[in-house]
Amino acid sequence: MYNKKIKVIDCTIRDGGLINKWQFSDETVKDVLFSVRDAGIDYMEIGYRASEKMFSPGEFGAWRFTKDEKLREIIGDEDLKDLKLGVMVDIGRVEAEDFAPVDESPLSFVRVATYLKDIDKAIKLANIIAEKGYETFINIMAISTVNDHDLAKGLQQVEEETSVTAVSVVDSNGALYPLDTKALVEIYKTNLKTKDIGIHAHNNQQLGFANTITAIGDGIGFADATIQGIGRGAGNCPLELLIGWLKNPKYDIEPILDRIQTTFVELEKKIEWGALPAYMVTGILNEHPRTAIALRASDEKNNVADFYKQLTTPECFN
Amino acid sequence: MYNKKIKVIDCTIRDGGLINKWQFSDETVKDVLFSVRDAGIDYMEIGYRASEKMFSPGEFGAWRFTKDEKLREIIGDEDLKDLKLGVMVDIGRVEAEDFAPVDESPLSFVRVATYLKDIDKAIKLANIIAEKGYETFINIMAISTVNDHDLAKGLQQVEEETSVTAVSVVDSNGALYPLDTKALVEIYKTNLKTKDIGIHAHNNQQLGFANTITAIGDGIGFADATIQGIGRGAGNCPLELLIGWLKNPKYDIEPILDRIQTTFVELEKKIEWGALPAYMVTGILNEHPRTAIALRASDEKNNVADFYKQLTTPECFN
Repeated sequence: MYNKKIKVIDCTIRDGGLINKWQFSDETVKDVLFSVRDAGIDYMEIGYRASEKMFSPGEFGAWRFTKDEKLREIIGDEDLKDLKLGVMVDIGRVEAEDFAPVDESPLSFVRVATYLKDIDKAIKLANIIAEKGYETFINIMAISTVNDHDLAKGLQQVEEETSVTAVSVVDSNGALYPLDTKALVEIYKTNLKTKDIGIHAHNNQQLGFANTITAIGDGIGFADATIQGIGRGAGNCPLELLIGWLKNPKYDIEPILDRIQTTFVELEKKIEWGALPAYMVTGILNEHPRTAIALRASDEKNNVADFYKQLTTPECFN
Repeated sequence: MYNKKIKVIDCTIRDGGLINKWQFSDETVKDVLFSVRDAGIDYMEIGYRASEKMFSPGEFGAWRFTKDEKLREIIGDEDLKDLKLGVMVDIGRVEAEDFAPVDESPLSFVRVATYLKDIDKAIKLANIIAEKGYETFINIMAISTVNDHDLAKGLQQVEEETSVTAVSVVDSNGALYPLDTKALVEIYKTNLKTKDIGIHAHNNQQLGFANTITAIGDGIGFADATIQGIGRGAGNCPLELLIGWLKNPKYDIEPILDRIQTTFVELEKKIEWGALPAYMVTGILNEHPRTAIALRASDEKNNVADFYKQLTTPECFN
């Protein structure tokens, strides 16, 4: 009955850290890591890797950098079983020297985040990392803002010039409806003959989970999710909803519910994310959530009607 | 480009009142009513109608009864334009004498809520009300718990024995996934040759909006929604998301966003609804949310892992 192909990528710490600059306690990171392992999740993207030359370690927590030695400290003597650990990298914020050969690292995979316009840079970076032995992925962000013909060309190039496992549909703006997701998966399928497809869906319009299971139904191989949907702005597809839907007996929802009860009830009091009306507005308008994030940090945080009028007033475009 | 067939039924006060026993101020009800009108919504189910013999008017607010004179007071001199007003009724909680002939009432439609097992009673009640001139509908609740063959028989009976405009798929448990919704709409289509179909989707698994637009894509004619998804437990399909997605130029999202900013920001501080983990659990388990509602009213409100274990422990079934 269950989908034998799908693999789940947990991004709880990596994406959640976009809210609090990765200032999670070691205890929280350990708790999440071992819950994700116990839930039978396949991959965990535990942080970004970035060069310390480019970011101040004083301002950012450890998971902005995700150094191998930090990871070893967190893992300790625990057995991660079948859980693969990885990081995300941004183009221009990391260098080849930031990666040890894979057999010297606790990491086994790296995902390169890119806009479509930078696909050549992403391919180059993915290939450098692949040469060090890591499994690689490319995530094409802001996918709701690109033309189909540009996307097809970019995907063909990834198909021909890389050895990535999969390329992900990333709905940065939270603008996709399920039918858009289906159309994009179709374009990915047509142009990626030897690579798999993933999805990273944002929850601006309460469609993070719906878009994810739509794409899974259409045959993709990798789905991103986070505990309680934590992530910048509206957040992501909630891991617990995804596990509740997947029928694979290897997944267990209980460790994730334990984590919600024990860690996330408190975390939610300190940092904010979720499908708030402000994020819905940027989703409907197919815009990056940055203006909504700024609104939520202001005194007018709840003035969603004013916010909508500002964004849709013609004067804004002059 | 837009769907010319779909009509939207706002249930903000009727369904929201399940949380607070319809103790809304007259000002709130007026504000919602006129915002719904200004947004171009087609139908508004403004309350339940129930016999005062069966419910104490001291305990319940006016919208448990929705008397014609109360409605006239609320409407005042305002022009409702094309907005049709209606009420929901439960079997056994209302009598024929509770309805004036339609031309003496501000109401134009009535929806009968029923479980499938009570479909004969629902048909009888709908016919009594239809004889008084009201447009009628039947809502089949807890649709995720019925067998396809029973459902087909019940729908055939409604088809043959009533003059209802439409029959709605009501996901009381918030258990339906989009593919389930598609399958149910197909059964409704097959068995309702001369009636339309509606949907009332709950948000336990953050699928209220997704299930609604799935059903619309499959050709149904009526979609229920509430402002900010207000409704008992996890709530409903949010009206603002639905309007944001529908391309019909007659709908205007701004009056609804104004209402959120002006009324719902405060309302949310007083009463609780939404896709909280406890409601997700009953949704995944295809159970009525009453246990989750009780949990949220208790000191263990956030103990979602314990709650899941209680509901899934075999001892519970002995």
